[in-house]
Amino acid sequence: MSPALWSHMTTSLNTWTAQIRAGDARAISRAVSAIENRTSEAEALLQLLFPFTGRAWRVGVTGAPGTGKSTLVDRLAAHYRSEKRSVGIIAVDPSSPFTGGAILGDRVRMQGHAGDEGIFIRSMATRGHLGGLAQSTGDATLLLDAAGKDMILVETVGVGQGEIEIVRLADCTVVVLVPGMGDDVQSLKAGLMEIADIFVINKSDREGAAAFETQLTAILQIVPERDGWKPPVVRAVATKDQGVAPLARQIALFREHVTKSQNRQARELAYWKEWLLRLIETRLVDRVLGDRAGSAAFEKLATEVAARTKDPYSAAREILSRSRV
Amino acid sequence: MSPALWSHMTTSLNTWTAQIRAGDARAISRAVSAIENRTSEAEALLQLLFPFTGRAWRVGVTGAPGTGKSTLVDRLAAHYRSEKRSVGIIAVDPSSPFTGGAILGDRVRMQGHAGDEGIFIRSMATRGHLGGLAQSTGDATLLLDAAGKDMILVETVGVGQGEIEIVRLADCTVVVLVPGMGDDVQSLKAGLMEIADIFVINKSDREGAAAFETQLTAILQIVPERDGWKPPVVRAVATKDQGVAPLARQIALFREHVTKSQNRQARELAYWKEWLLRLIETRLVDRVLGDRAGSAAFEKLATEVAARTKDPYSAAREILSRSRV
Repeated sequence: MSPALWSHMTTSLNTWTAQIRAGDARAISRAVSAIENRTSEAEALLQLLFPFTGRAWRVGVTGAPGTGKSTLVDRLAAHYRSEKRSVGIIAVDPSSPFTGGAILGDRVRMQGHAGDEGIFIRSMATRGHLGGLAQSTGDATLLLDAAGKDMILVETVGVGQGEIEIVRLADCTVVVLVPGMGDDVQSLKAGLMEIADIFVINKSDREGAAAFETQLTAILQIVPERDGWKPPVVRAVATKDQGVAPLARQIALFREHVTKSQNRQARELAYWKEWLLRLIETRLVDRVLGDRAGSAAFEKLATEVAARTKDPYSAAREILSRSRV
Repeated sequence: MSPALWSHMTTSLNTWTAQIRAGDARAISRAVSAIENRTSEAEALLQLLFPFTGRAWRVGVTGAPGTGKSTLVDRLAAHYRSEKRSVGIIAVDPSSPFTGGAILGDRVRMQGHAGDEGIFIRSMATRGHLGGLAQSTGDATLLLDAAGKDMILVETVGVGQGEIEIVRLADCTVVVLVPGMGDDVQSLKAGLMEIADIFVINKSDREGAAAFETQLTAILQIVPERDGWKPPVVRAVATKDQGVAPLARQIALFREHVTKSQNRQARELAYWKEWLLRLIETRLVDRVLGDRAGSAAFEKLATEVAARTKDPYSAAREILSRSRV
């Protein structure tokens, strides 16, 4: 890069950084797009923004489809706005970019907060099959943190491994359940118990809510406390704005608990390890397969494996030997 | 390795391979454990087994918790057994190994098929945070394929990105839904439409099943056909064994469709690309962070990032520069 171009880029990056720090929604939105597309500008920008991060509190909200997560997140955001706290919402959409669901969803959701500059809402979707969604989401939370948002709400669909990776990047994880979906108690144990800091039973005006709460509380009894915190259960009917203030209170209590905890440093370290791992994984695959020669070798070897003239383990070794890792 | 030790290892690997090909359940189970723990033996074994793969048909079954996937998979397995076809079941459990849920689940589930050597059931869980579950699952399906199983059923919880990666490794993907969870039509679109070859509406004796089917069918009308296949909708009540035979029929029809398809080769290639990518990702991270020096550097840099004396992007670059990728 020529010194002139470099100087130009640096100047424009500095302007961009300043706009983001001032909370300019367009500048933030452009940065999220850069993060999604993993441009080199995004990385340079995030490096400049990093020193201004660490003030926000990031809440991950997850649960199966149909549990009413979006409504709950919207109401929680409105609650924080009523306390004059600024809010950033990232809705992680595992669908392909072709459905267009993400952008439509943003538009519908923004209407409820039209004209409010204290709230920023954005969906993020997967680009291509190279994954990296957890990492992009992490980058976006850093961005919103540097942009001065007090509370960052990260909403993810599902409770699969991908979502667990995403919510691990939050400071506090809220798992949303609804009565009548939990007939499969075994499935409740799978993964959720390890990640939930707070449980919400949404749609708790439904039949069977009390029985469901009893069942959930009974399961929680036998789960060992982590770091002195026992996940509370909050009953809510998000559509009627019920249980939203109690949820906000539990989130605040958990924040206080973590802040005072002796394990705070260990927690922070574990957090950044997870974060670094995602980043390294994404970068490694980009480097090995991202260039022309890499993708050509990949194409050729995949063809040989598909024809069964080569086994996949030997094929992987050949690609890896090219890259001298 | 000394020539004597090498010869001993090769002999024992050859014996193991022979036992697996003969369908010996203990040998298969030991191999799944080796795959889970990513031992070097596992890779050597899979290389030996690869030439004997390609005969089985792999069906991925996914859906949110509480949709009754396990029951459906069990009944489908029983159906195939009544046709004298051998079956392998891999239940992918995203929970940590500490819950012990997987092994307990296996025992409970095996009881229904006690003494039947034509069926093999095994759960797989995540080991550590290095991921790679999709890749291990893929390895396990190759193993069961080489072990002569005619039908391999891969069951995953949830509909997140992690699960999508896992079911992409199957030949046919069945998405299980239940009436009353789909109030959130948007969530139904997210990701599922792209991966489903067949939809099952389970618990279809519930109220609202007909309306739900109408809604789903309406959505499917506007989704473009992929490769001349329009995903059918099968109504089922797995607990009453209803809809299981129709599901098996649709799976057979889809197999016929794919076998005759002009895009078969493109499909196979896409499959192996996905597969290779997972393998490379896992190996790359293992190589960069798997040794003592790598994990020490990782530890040190994560500590610096947690203390905010270094930004994560610079930290990742330092680790990557160590490995000369």
